[in-house]
Amino acid sequence: MLPFSRVAIIGMGLIGSSLARAVREAMPTVRLTVSDGDADVRARVLDLDIADDVTDNAGAAVVDAELVILAVPVGAMGAVAAEIAADLAPGAIVSDVGSVKGRVLADLTAALPGIAIVPGHPVAGTEKSGPDAGFASLFRDRWCILTPAKEGADSARVSAFWERLGAKVEIMDAAHHDRVLAVTSHLPHLIAYSIVGTASDLESVTRSEVIKFSAGGFRDFTRIAASDPVMWRDVFLNNREAVLETLGRFTEDLVALQRAIRWGEGDTLEALFTRTRAIRRSIIDEGQDTETPDFGRPH
Amino acid sequence: MLPFSRVAIIGMGLIGSSLARAVREAMPTVRLTVSDGDADVRARVLDLDIADDVTDNAGAAVVDAELVILAVPVGAMGAVAAEIAADLAPGAIVSDVGSVKGRVLADLTAALPGIAIVPGHPVAGTEKSGPDAGFASLFRDRWCILTPAKEGADSARVSAFWERLGAKVEIMDAAHHDRVLAVTSHLPHLIAYSIVGTASDLESVTRSEVIKFSAGGFRDFTRIAASDPVMWRDVFLNNREAVLETLGRFTEDLVALQRAIRWGEGDTLEALFTRTRAIRRSIIDEGQDTETPDFGRPH
Repeated sequence: MLPFSRVAIIGMGLIGSSLARAVREAMPTVRLTVSDGDADVRARVLDLDIADDVTDNAGAAVVDAELVILAVPVGAMGAVAAEIAADLAPGAIVSDVGSVKGRVLADLTAALPGIAIVPGHPVAGTEKSGPDAGFASLFRDRWCILTPAKEGADSARVSAFWERLGAKVEIMDAAHHDRVLAVTSHLPHLIAYSIVGTASDLESVTRSEVIKFSAGGFRDFTRIAASDPVMWRDVFLNNREAVLETLGRFTEDLVALQRAIRWGEGDTLEALFTRTRAIRRSIIDEGQDTETPDFGRPH
Repeated sequence: MLPFSRVAIIGMGLIGSSLARAVREAMPTVRLTVSDGDADVRARVLDLDIADDVTDNAGAAVVDAELVILAVPVGAMGAVAAEIAADLAPGAIVSDVGSVKGRVLADLTAALPGIAIVPGHPVAGTEKSGPDAGFASLFRDRWCILTPAKEGADSARVSAFWERLGAKVEIMDAAHHDRVLAVTSHLPHLIAYSIVGTASDLESVTRSEVIKFSAGGFRDFTRIAASDPVMWRDVFLNNREAVLETLGRFTEDLVALQRAIRWGEGDTLEALFTRTRAIRRSIIDEGQDTETPDFGRPH
C-alpha cells in the first residue's frame, strides 16, 4: 500500500523537482500537485511533465494533499507555511527538505498550530540549481533524516515514503541534526566558499593562474562553492550556533597544523595525513562515495 | 623527431608509473629504464610491463639516458640526485615531477654541478598511490609547469616531451610556481586534511554519523585527504613560506565570514556565494574540470 496517494510539493528547484521525478517513477499512481512562485520554473515543470498539476498558488497545490513537502530555502519556510495554513486538508502531514531542522521545526510549529509536522532532510544534492537539474535517482542510497518532535504514526508514514524513493531513513532530534550537519555539510560549504573567495582576490597570483592550475586540488572546492547562494545564505543564518562552534574547532585544528608547518614537525603532519585516509575508506565502504579515482572524472 | 630516445624514470608511484605508461603509448620507440627502491613496486612494474628495464639501482637506470625524471617525494630529490650524479651520461638533462620547485631546483643544482636541470611539475594526479594507480592519460590536457633557471634548448626539449604526452606546458620562475601552487594545490590539501581530522575528533558527533551523512559535502574533502602522506608532508615542509602566507590570507577571510554569520549579515554571505560560482564556470570553460553534476559520480 502507498504511504500517501496525494502529495504536494512547494518549490520546484533541484530538490523539489528531483522529488517530483522520484515520486513519478516509484509511485506512479500518486496524484502530485506542485507549486512555484517563478513563472519560468512553472513553464519548465510543465514542459518536463513531472507533475499532475502546476500552480503559482501554494494554497491551491495543497488543498487535498495528504503529504505536503516544502522544498524552499530554509528562511522561506515560515512564510510558505503561513500561506498554506488555511488550505491544508484535515489530517495532512507537513514535511520539508531543508538543511537546518531546529529553526524549521520551530517556524512550522508556530505557523501551523495543530498540524502534524515531520521535518525532513534528504542528505543529497548537486551543485546545480533549478528544475532542469533534478533527477529521479538523487535520493537512492542516500540518507534522509527526519526530526519530528515526537515519533509515531506520522513519522512512520513519512519514513515509508522516503524508503519508496530509495532513501535510507534515520530519525533524530532536530538539535542533534543541526550539530551533525554543521560538520558534514555546513562547514565544508563555508570553507569551500571561503577558499574560492580567497583564491580570486590575491595580488601575487592571477585569477587566470588559479583557473589554469586548479587541477592540483582547488577545483574540488569550486564544485560545492557553486551551490545555490540563497539556500546557503539561509543555512548559515539559521544554524548559526552549531556552525560557529564547529568552525571554532576547525580553526583551532588548522592553527595547530600551521604551527607544525612553521616548526617543521614532519611527524605530526605525516601522522594526520595517514589517519585521514581511513575515513575516506569508510565512506566508500558504506556506499556514500565512489571508489573510482578522482570521483570518476573523465581522464 | 622524438625529443629524447632514451628516458629514465626514478620512482614508480602514481606519477612515475603514469609517465612510463604515457611514454610507452605516445613514443613507443623510446628506450625506457626505470628504478624503484621497493621490491614489491619493481615486481608490479615488471608484471605490468610498462618499462624496458627495471632496476633497484637509480645509477644503473640513468647510465645512457638523455632525459632523467625524478618521480620521488620532494624531500628525497637531493639524495636521489646525489645517487645518480656519477652515472649520468654527458649531455643528460635531469628533470622531476615534484609539487615544490624552489627547493628542488636548489637541491638538484647543489647535487648535480654542471648538469642541465629543468625542474617540472605536471599539475595532475588522483588520490591513489603506487604503480597500479597510474594510467597513460593522466597528463592529457593538464598543465605541466617547467621552472628552469634559464630558458633555452634544454627546456624546449623537455617541453616537447610533455607536449607529446598530451600536456600543455607553461614556463615560470620557481618562486612564482611555489606561490601559485600554494593556492591551487597546497592550501586545498592542507584544509582538506585539517577538516577531515577535525570531523573525526568531535565528541558531540560520532565518526559513524560523519561517515553516514558525508554526502552533504564532507565526502568531497576526503578525496584529497586520502592522498599520499609522505608526498604531502614533504610539500608542506619544503614550501613553508608560501603555504603559511596563503594560509594567513585564507584564515583572515574565513574569520570575516565567521563574523558575518555571527552578526547575521545575509547580504555579505549571499554576495560571496554568488561570486564564487563564476570561478567554477571558468574552470569548466577552460577544460580543467567536468561540467557533469557532482563530478560525474554515479547516481
